[in-house]
Amino acid sequence: MAKKIRVTVWGENVHEKTTKETQEIYPEGMHAAIAGFLNRQPDMEACTATLDQPEHGLTDELLAKTDVLTWWAHVAHGDVDDAVVEKVHRRVLGGMGIILLHSAHFSKIFVRLMGTTCQLKWREVAEREVLWVTRPGHEILQGIEDHFIIPHVEMYGEHFDIPEPDDTILISSFQGGEVFRSGCTWRRGAGKVFYFRPGHETYPIFHDKTVQKILVNAVRWARPAGAMAFGTSHKEMGWFLK
Amino acid sequence: MAKKIRVTVWGENVHEKTTKETQEIYPEGMHAAIAGFLNRQPDMEACTATLDQPEHGLTDELLAKTDVLTWWAHVAHGDVDDAVVEKVHRRVLGGMGIILLHSAHFSKIFVRLMGTTCQLKWREVAEREVLWVTRPGHEILQGIEDHFIIPHVEMYGEHFDIPEPDDTILISSFQGGEVFRSGCTWRRGAGKVFYFRPGHETYPIFHDKTVQKILVNAVRWARPAGAMAFGTSHKEMGWFLK
Amino acid sequence: MAKKIRVTVWGENVHEKTTKETQEIYPEGMHAAIAGFLNRQPDMEACTATLDQPEHGLTDELLAKTDVLTWWAHVAHGDVDDAVVEKVHRRVLGGMGIILLHSAHFSKIFVRLMGTTCQLKWREVAEREVLWVTRPGHEILQGIEDHFIIPHVEMYGEHFDIPEPDDTILISSFQGGEVFRSGCTWRRGAGKVFYFRPGHETYPIFHDKTVQKILVNAVRWARPAGAMAFGTSHKEMGWFLK
Amino acid sequence: MAKKIRVTVWGENVHEKTTKETQEIYPEGMHAAIAGFLNRQPDMEACTATLDQPEHGLTDELLAKTDVLTWWAHVAHGDVDDAVVEKVHRRVLGGMGIILLHSAHFSKIFVRLMGTTCQLKWREVAEREVLWVTRPGHEILQGIEDHFIIPHVEMYGEHFDIPEPDDTILISSFQGGEVFRSGCTWRRGAGKVFYFRPGHETYPIFHDKTVQKILVNAVRWARPAGAMAFGTSHKEMGWFLK
Repeated sequence: MAKKIRVTVWGENVHEKTTKETQEIYPEGMHAAIAGFLNRQPDMEACTATLDQPEHGLTDELLAKTDVLTWWAHVAHGDVDDAVVEKVHRRVLGGMGIILLHSAHFSKIFVRLMGTTCQLKWREVAEREVLWVTRPGHEILQGIEDHFIIPHVEMYGEHFDIPEPDDTILISSFQGGEVFRSGCTWRRGAGKVFYFRPGHETYPIFHDKTVQKILVNAVRWARPAGAMAFGTSHKEMGWFLK
Repeated sequence: MAKKIRVTVWGENVHEKTTKETQEIYPEGMHAAIAGFLNRQPDMEACTATLDQPEHGLTDELLAKTDVLTWWAHVAHGDVDDAVVEKVHRRVLGGMGIILLHSAHFSKIFVRLMGTTCQLKWREVAEREVLWVTRPGHEILQGIEDHFIIPHVEMYGEHFDIPEPDDTILISSFQGGEVFRSGCTWRRGAGKVFYFRPGHETYPIFHDKTVQKILVNAVRWARPAGAMAFGTSHKEMGWFLK
Repeated sequence: MAKKIRVTVWGENVHEKTTKETQEIYPEGMHAAIAGFLNRQPDMEACTATLDQPEHGLTDELLAKTDVLTWWAHVAHGDVDDAVVEKVHRRVLGGMGIILLHSAHFSKIFVRLMGTTCQLKWREVAEREVLWVTRPGHEILQGIEDHFIIPHVEMYGEHFDIPEPDDTILISSFQGGEVFRSGCTWRRGAGKVFYFRPGHETYPIFHDKTVQKILVNAVRWARPAGAMAFGTSHKEMGWFLK
Repeated sequence: MAKKIRVTVWGENVHEKTTKETQEIYPEGMHAAIAGFLNRQPDMEACTATLDQPEHGLTDELLAKTDVLTWWAHVAHGDVDDAVVEKVHRRVLGGMGIILLHSAHFSKIFVRLMGTTCQLKWREVAEREVLWVTRPGHEILQGIEDHFIIPHVEMYGEHFDIPEPDDTILISSFQGGEVFRSGCTWRRGAGKVFYFRPGHETYPIFHDKTVQKILVNAVRWARPAGAMAFGTSHKEMGWFLK
């Protein structure tokens, strides 16, 4: 337990260059904001990586030592190199945790992990979201009771085309009447996957203390407890020969 | 396929004697209304049974030939004989389908099948419910697209204390901001279980065509495809002896 | 119910040209053998399609009218055109059932639907397999009790790298001591997915009456009950405006 | 993390008084043996409780401060007071972890948590069990790779009548050809439930280092991360009134 959890906070880093609201709310970028509150945890050590870096900042060396990867992306999913997606996918199956944030529902890595389209409805009118706890006692919800509210959000609505989650831990309602499974977990290979809906680029959602608490919990929940070996396809035990 | 699906529609039959609105909306009782629209299906044969009958109408003979049991109850859960609950439980595990309606979330049989408290929040102010499809293509949702609306309902809100469903097929939002997993399926033993939220006694919900369609679909989905034997606890194959 | 279930039986059709045992056991090919016993069902209408045909026989027209696709493949997974895989994937999410047979665990379509490697162990020494029923009453196991035996098989052993199945309905033991989840179901989008382990090309497994019964049941189970629309990403309900 | 996990090791303590082999293998009882290796963990503090104590040793005070309860029982399930079962059930739903060992599959508390019969097949001829990892990377399997073997066991065979587990992490094969889901997890309310098959009273299975490692891991996995409140049935948010 003495070893810190090594988190890599990946950010698309496009709105940071193009969108005034994002620049005002997150002067150093959303990824830096997320890494910031994670680094205030005594048991975590977070760095950032972005799309515009070589290999999108996700070198083999960095991935190999990453315990948990968080992924925020929105307008540039198509610019992510398939070879990087392949490497990240393999690391998740091998044991690395991954946390997909908001519009990362359409990222190549999430779509590949799910095997579905991950499509959903959306509307952007800064409406109110109420997030209801549907699995009290879940590790990711430590310290969260009953529900919490984010006053201004982009709406995401069902049907959200995902495989049935292992655990649906948060369901949102929106002012407009829609619902959404906002906190969902899956295991894939030896890795743990958490999709978390909040986090739009034009609202200060990653400055919200409850959102931060959930992400801190999620990093702890997603850290690897073991590994899956690849290519272990041919083994003989041979008791039947005796 | 030639054989009709035999449905037993169980009703508590208390509001039918005591509540004016119920009497006006369902002059012959909710159970009779439900059996009525099921019996209009060419592949179904529905009868009713009620709490006030001997053995609550659920004789061994009737249970043995019931393919699917529907259960509506509200104020008299405690009056249901444990021996009857035991028999119904055994029949469900043995293969009979069961459909729990609305306030049957607190029925002895549902609580026993789930192994949890099945508690939830509620409020009765005749608000609007929007039921969103979260599993398009599910057999129970045949003919239902995207969402449907019930204008006046009692609200049920999360946290609904149930085991994670096999499939969460409908999630509701309410005017007051709450959400609820309104259509949930589980397998228990050889039997299939469907919980369906709508159906309050003072609104004409079982006269709603969409609600009727879902219940008709649910009966088809829940019909047995096989049985589980009881007491098969001791068998020897003995290849290891050879 | 009057409309027949339209099944497309897809075969790689390579062992049929190269492997003597396959030619002796399945003179017209495994796909023809499978289509043969499906076509003896009054409610089914099966055709075949193979890798060596244009578009691997899976034209848009054929896919559009296919209710259930079965897929056998082994040595030529890499030769399947990605564009065809994409089309099949979309049809499954849209509602078409799919049944993956034996070594199709490594097919592009299964790996894509699962989001995992689908790797497993194997050994080929014609050993005995016992398949145990772990979900009595499941539609796919109609008429199957407790267990059945296939005398000579290729072994597949855990760890099988798949997402936790919705239902694990059959688990095998092998003479050599290994186990395997041999019958697994998932829902993806509006489609149903069944993986079924038996079916090696050098044993007469598709002539086995129990195997045939399971596949007939699986086709009925996998037939579509509805569809998922694509691209329904932007809808406004707008109650909040009122 | 500084606070130790408080474990209560519950034992039926009947074979300890009546069965010579048990007395020889576990001179102080199985419960003492289990508490022994748990207490060697720096982060755990284990005590024991047994059937023959007042309230079976499970006072309100002890239950309230127990983080994880382990349960071994075999011949005296019927002697466990229903009121105690009720209290334990409530504590599990409220957040306490519970680990059911071997023949505890038929304990009142497990049957109640599952909602099924929990029946299985058995045979006692001291045959070999191979336990295969089916979820590498699971917290409970930390340090366990691929498979492990227990040379002499009582056989448990499928069909094991349980709800589909959240995670099936171990599947056993037996010398006689049977299979069994030997490591299964579920969430119920805010509590975590682990069923673990090994642990027959006439074999030194709780002295096995791999078995001990799994139980140590399981205790860490099952410790509470939060609580579920009871009776939160009526809440109004009332946004719709505004």
